[in-house]
Amino acid sequence: MRQPEPEPQSFDRVLSSMCTEPHPDARAAAERFLAANPGDPATYETVASLETRAVERLATLADHPTPPDAAGYVTSGGTEANVQAVRSARNRHGGCDVNVVAPASAHFSFTKAAELLDVELRTVPVGDDYRADLEAVAAAVDEATALVVGVAGSTEYGRVDPIPELAATAGEVGARVHVDAAWGGFVLPFTEHDWSFADAPVDTLTIDPHKFGQAPVPAGGLLAREDAALDALAVDTPYLESRSQATLTGTRSGAGVAGAVAAMDALWPEGYREAAERAADNADWLAAELADRGYEVVDPELPLIAAAVPESEFAALRDAGWKVSRTGTGELRVVCMPHVTRATLRAFLDDLDGIRRR
Amino acid sequence: MRQPEPEPQSFDRVLSSMCTEPHPDARAAAERFLAANPGDPATYETVASLETRAVERLATLADHPTPPDAAGYVTSGGTEANVQAVRSARNRHGGCDVNVVAPASAHFSFTKAAELLDVELRTVPVGDDYRADLEAVAAAVDEATALVVGVAGSTEYGRVDPIPELAATAGEVGARVHVDAAWGGFVLPFTEHDWSFADAPVDTLTIDPHKFGQAPVPAGGLLAREDAALDALAVDTPYLESRSQATLTGTRSGAGVAGAVAAMDALWPEGYREAAERAADNADWLAAELADRGYEVVDPELPLIAAAVPESEFAALRDAGWKVSRTGTGELRVVCMPHVTRATLRAFLDDLDGIRRR
Repeated sequence: MRQPEPEPQSFDRVLSSMCTEPHPDARAAAERFLAANPGDPATYETVASLETRAVERLATLADHPTPPDAAGYVTSGGTEANVQAVRSARNRHGGCDVNVVAPASAHFSFTKAAELLDVELRTVPVGDDYRADLEAVAAAVDEATALVVGVAGSTEYGRVDPIPELAATAGEVGARVHVDAAWGGFVLPFTEHDWSFADAPVDTLTIDPHKFGQAPVPAGGLLAREDAALDALAVDTPYLESRSQATLTGTRSGAGVAGAVAAMDALWPEGYREAAERAADNADWLAAELADRGYEVVDPELPLIAAAVPESEFAALRDAGWKVSRTGTGELRVVCMPHVTRATLRAFLDDLDGIRRR
Repeated sequence: MRQPEPEPQSFDRVLSSMCTEPHPDARAAAERFLAANPGDPATYETVASLETRAVERLATLADHPTPPDAAGYVTSGGTEANVQAVRSARNRHGGCDVNVVAPASAHFSFTKAAELLDVELRTVPVGDDYRADLEAVAAAVDEATALVVGVAGSTEYGRVDPIPELAATAGEVGARVHVDAAWGGFVLPFTEHDWSFADAPVDTLTIDPHKFGQAPVPAGGLLAREDAALDALAVDTPYLESRSQATLTGTRSGAGVAGAVAAMDALWPEGYREAAERAADNADWLAAELADRGYEVVDPELPLIAAAVPESEFAALRDAGWKVSRTGTGELRVVCMPHVTRATLRAFLDDLDGIRRR
């Protein structure tokens, strides 16, 4: 007897994810390109040309000085992009024993990168505002520092580090600068934050279509100011008609590339602006509602709320089917992605109120 | 005005790829799971349970001693699986300055892995039969050798290294053994070759559903005999409700996982047996046809043909729209994947004959 087809759970109660329901055009494009491999451009030419378009659009979002000629590619996600940025900086710095300086708020992919690439990760504290502490960064860098990492939309609190100041500190020791805007990149263009290639001498930048870009998984993005950043990653490819490969993976997802292009074609800039504003409104509203109930709430700078909800209530919310997660210090974390509507948040608060009354 | 939707080229003339048209069930499953992320199992529980099924099925194919408990995961492809095998061996070996010994026929992902992971890659020659030269391997290994790589289905000639003998050599110096069956893994169970966990003390193995497994991209596979191989890769994941992550990437493709399960459910074992036999017949037939025309042909051991076709004829075939590629020494390479039918190969030979008559 045939088993019933497994179905993915709906996004109705997903408040913990930085991925979201893809835009319908992006889903359709991904379905068409499920069997194409941008890692083999001499065989799969159409998807290779789509990747060129994806990079140009991402570069436009991130204020690259020359979007049509920007170096970059569609990665499997933010982790690959961050790993590759560290690898590129390591390879370009020269010398053994290089180090990377990153705030404690940096994503765990930098821990992974350091372990993988055998570089020292110097993690420096954040200030009371959850942003990189500039004095601590200045004290941590030295001539062996290949890279200083700034986060533009941190995973736990949605904070944007002072990128221009971090870049100045990096510049003093000849280190390169990487901005991790994996999650924030599609929201930041509609804010006043300094984060992009235009705002500071940023060398490389992570910006993921499959997060706020509303592309299907897997579609991350790595951009570089100079071609040399990618050249430093290239290995020869003997049996492919292309000559070298700078990506971390080999075969890559055509669905991700085609989906990213379709999402950006459909949504840049007005659709993304509307989504960002709606998300910000929802985050502000939820923060106020939680504060009204007496919870300590970390003010949402980007659309992400952290609130000190007791362990027992957190567990009850999970039991009620809410996909929520916690920061390292145990606060409830809600990411207001495009699929998270005001109605969803009302239902969430209704359940929370019920739990509190028990 | 709306641009026409870009369409992927069909597989009609693709003879160079190790990917193929997915099985219809696999395509349907992938479409359902385009927005799920097995990298976040506490949020996306359904796809996480599908991944457990995928690993069990892959472990069954590769004769793992205990498939339901096999360590492994669905990677982005063979490159990730190979990189992770090298990383695991490096981390488990201890000491600095470890080396990896691989035959010259090993995939370029081992070059990538060595550069990335900062380990020495000792490439040893292959013999006249295109297989790892055992004496050369024995001469290359030493106490700093963390891993000996054997290829079970090489990219250029489809050859299977003598895995039990390589494992014995590795055992003498305490090195671990990795088998790269990325492409061969779904064909080898229907041959007499020694390649699997049952045939030798293999530690880790690469086997990709998105190649001969007829799953959509991206779906590779890494398997390990012992949990410790994966434990050696784990980093903490502070903000996910799961505790640690052993994968190279972070967010991963739900489409790949769901597609891999659906393909294996539909095709293992009889569908894969039929596909393997059909591919072998086609490869033998094409080899004979090319030999009849006077080309020097490398005898196909697995369904992959290499033939010394002059550069001008190769270029004319590419101009005619045939996606073909070349080995490092310039031979035409045709991979008889499931989408490559006898009719396709007849059309290819007709075009080749036309080019020769010019």
